[in-house]
Amino acid sequence: MKPIITAFECSPDRGQGLARDMRVRWALEEAGQAYDVRLVSFAQLKQPAHLALHPFGQIPTYQDGEVALFESGAIVLHIAEQHAGLLPTEPAARMRTIAWMFAALNTVEPPIVEHSLAAILERDRPWYAQRQPMLDERAPQRLDELSRHLGDAPWLGQAFSAADLLMATVLMRAQAGGLLQTYPNLVDYLARATARPAFQRAFQAQREVFVQAQASAERAGP
Amino acid sequence: MKPIITAFECSPDRGQGLARDMRVRWALEEAGQAYDVRLVSFAQLKQPAHLALHPFGQIPTYQDGEVALFESGAIVLHIAEQHAGLLPTEPAARMRTIAWMFAALNTVEPPIVEHSLAAILERDRPWYAQRQPMLDERAPQRLDELSRHLGDAPWLGQAFSAADLLMATVLMRAQAGGLLQTYPNLVDYLARATARPAFQRAFQAQREVFVQAQASAERAGP
Repeated sequence: MKPIITAFECSPDRGQGLARDMRVRWALEEAGQAYDVRLVSFAQLKQPAHLALHPFGQIPTYQDGEVALFESGAIVLHIAEQHAGLLPTEPAARMRTIAWMFAALNTVEPPIVEHSLAAILERDRPWYAQRQPMLDERAPQRLDELSRHLGDAPWLGQAFSAADLLMATVLMRAQAGGLLQTYPNLVDYLARATARPAFQRAFQAQREVFVQAQASAERAGP
Repeated sequence: MKPIITAFECSPDRGQGLARDMRVRWALEEAGQAYDVRLVSFAQLKQPAHLALHPFGQIPTYQDGEVALFESGAIVLHIAEQHAGLLPTEPAARMRTIAWMFAALNTVEPPIVEHSLAAILERDRPWYAQRQPMLDERAPQRLDELSRHLGDAPWLGQAFSAADLLMATVLMRAQAGGLLQTYPNLVDYLARATARPAFQRAFQAQREVFVQAQASAERAGP
């Protein structure tokens, strides 16, 4: 059975690849695993049929013959455990990679999401202009530490892994929020990751969904 | 070799068990694995010796004969993979548990941390009184969804697991921030988790560190 994932029918990022199905598509492309996509509207996200797959009413979900999953980090880990190439087999290196997967999602991502959500959701609030400089200072702290740790290394571990995949998707959001340009080594790291053919295929696939949704909306007319 | 973890020499939560070493201590107690603790001062966190163990200069870290780790989620997963009782062995149930581990740390925890950090770091800022009602509304969204999903079930899966352990530590922070009292089933779930003897042993161990630090500070005098 081909895995089935869910993605937004019309992604709020307009096809920039910031929605979390991007991670799962990329991992499946790295693994050489064909997959099907079921598109979900915003209204469907909070309906019982989708909540049965995803308790928090988000995308992506993942189903294969064996397991039904939610949480992009867990889905990427599952794909990495099923296929060669995304997770070292040596136990200590495997666990270090998993530590970096958690670091990407639990340590680096939250302040970047907080920064970008404030710019979206609080732009019209009276405190925005006063408060955003504080966030501009807070969000980069983790990027400072990541940049220093990475140095000139091409990847977080010995070779590209599921940890780099997740970290790169987090850095895409940092770049979209204007937080990355002062870190040349992180800009290079992200460029190295996104130049991978598997990334390119995944990116085009999610972009195509947005382009099609846009075309449908235009055909439907004003 | 007994595992060695790091913890704050003097936890900013004053021994409430909100620091992330609590998770690791609890998992080790559930596993029946003795461990040693090395205490770290705030100044030491950002020094090269500690950064070599933790690239983001935080606690906890974990070292055993096999692996050196950071990120509490990854450390708990490692302990759960090494010992029986924290992770189902059946593959689909194992991956579902891991999905809930990621959900605890990546979906439920960030808005709760954002809420409690704002109350600590922004209380004196001019926008605090205007903005906090928005956070009071935003943070509980994930708790609504978690409460609805859990219903009357005792645990997230068939039996207590590493996912419940992580989720309970996240809910401890929600409770400390005054966000939990409107969810009787989550209050009960947290009480069930924290009544476990392994939790109690871990809680007392971390509390003792704070009590000792306090006593030393008092001996040193004003």
